Amino acid sequence: MSAQHIVRSFDKELDYLAKKIAEMGKHARHMVERSISAIVQDDSFLADRVIAEDIVLDEAERDIDEKAILIIALRQPMAVDLREIVGTIRMSADLERIGDMGKNIAKRVAAMTEIRQSASFYKNLEAFASLALRQLDEVLDAYAKQSLERIDAVREHDDEIDAMYTSLFRELLSYMVEYPSNITVCTHLLFCAKNIERIGDHATNIAETVHYILTGYYPLSERPKDDQTYEVGLDKKRIFQKNV
Amino acid sequence: MSAQHIVRSFDKELDYLAKKIAEMGKHARHMVERSISAIVQDDSFLADRVIAEDIVLDEAERDIDEKAILIIALRQPMAVDLREIVGTIRMSADLERIGDMGKNIAKRVAAMTEIRQSASFYKNLEAFASLALRQLDEVLDAYAKQSLERIDAVREHDDEIDAMYTSLFRELLSYMVEYPSNITVCTHLLFCAKNIERIGDHATNIAETVHYILTGYYPLSERPKDDQTYEVGLDKKRIFQKNV
Repeated sequence: MSAQHIVRSFDKELDYLAKKIAEMGKHARHMVERSISAIVQDDSFLADRVIAEDIVLDEAERDIDEKAILIIALRQPMAVDLREIVGTIRMSADLERIGDMGKNIAKRVAAMTEIRQSASFYKNLEAFASLALRQLDEVLDAYAKQSLERIDAVREHDDEIDAMYTSLFRELLSYMVEYPSNITVCTHLLFCAKNIERIGDHATNIAETVHYILTGYYPLSERPKDDQTYEVGLDKKRIFQKNV
Repeated sequence: MSAQHIVRSFDKELDYLAKKIAEMGKHARHMVERSISAIVQDDSFLADRVIAEDIVLDEAERDIDEKAILIIALRQPMAVDLREIVGTIRMSADLERIGDMGKNIAKRVAAMTEIRQSASFYKNLEAFASLALRQLDEVLDAYAKQSLERIDAVREHDDEIDAMYTSLFRELLSYMVEYPSNITVCTHLLFCAKNIERIGDHATNIAETVHYILTGYYPLSERPKDDQTYEVGLDKKRIFQKNV
């Protein structure tokens, strides 16, 4: 969208898509943030509101898809414009899924109210969510500013998210081994942690899409996005040792 | 694709996309099937092969995206053709993610080799995967035959998948409570079960996309696709009671 087009209404259409993406990003962020608050504060009223708001993102995604397809069909855009439009279709799908993660987390609040965990669990989960949301903020900022440099910087944070997820996973597992009465709630917390890890993955997807919009190709290097907890084996001692 | 177009090459392009979707479906199915075999048979060699094959779906998705966008830009298709092309973009994303689920399951094999569970766990996981894959088969068949009736039938199986997931979830939880030494491996099995449940969700997404292609709108009734395990609370007795 750097240069203006001869047809002004085309610029307006592209602006509309970019604005919608920014709105979706804000909404998705807000949902995730409040789903975590609902867990930390054991607030099922807030959780219900987060769940109810998911539909906003579903509709926004459909709206972007329809508008984008119409623009492609009517304007036959080429090069960077075409990539920009296709990119918004991809980004809206990722943002919709980030909202889903918030909804999933909020849904677990009801199952976790009976037994409260030690404050440290919630703190770590909160810190982990903040990290993933910071990643999302940065990638949306890079998109708004069309900055390739910022995009490359974002992708470097993937490792931090993976490391924090692995540490949280281990912590919860060893806690379950020590206190089997907390197994159910810890299982729900494990799924919450997994949801947050996936938010990081979606932020990385968006970063790759922005890279594609700006350059015409996807970043070459395989990002190290994999869930490292696959390696968390069965040996109790190993869990505790690595968890120190 | 029911009626032929005046421009023959346009038909060929649409055929190419439909064929690619069918290929992706077969590949994704094969990956999931073998990831489950790798777990049941504790075959890390097979697991590694499944993990390595994921790239095929990544490339197929990108290929479909690029071709679809090109066709839209060059041919300016309208109505059902446009929906067909947009639909392939959506379906390829869902199929790529189903392959990811297979890869995720395969990755857990390494963490589960040390302690083997009772055969019944693997049997239930296998049965659950078969159910989800049958759902995928039916939806791909409905797409190939452009049959709205079949699509509606597929969506009715969602409940079966949810019920089976909830039962597996409860079974694993109560097993963890009884035998805390198996917590780690059961946690990995829980994530496998969650992956299979998500395969069912993706199959439902595809069913909705086919519905959209054939009719021009998405099915109205909200499908009951949600993970019912959110309700699995903390009370041990409740788990066991409901698990009978």
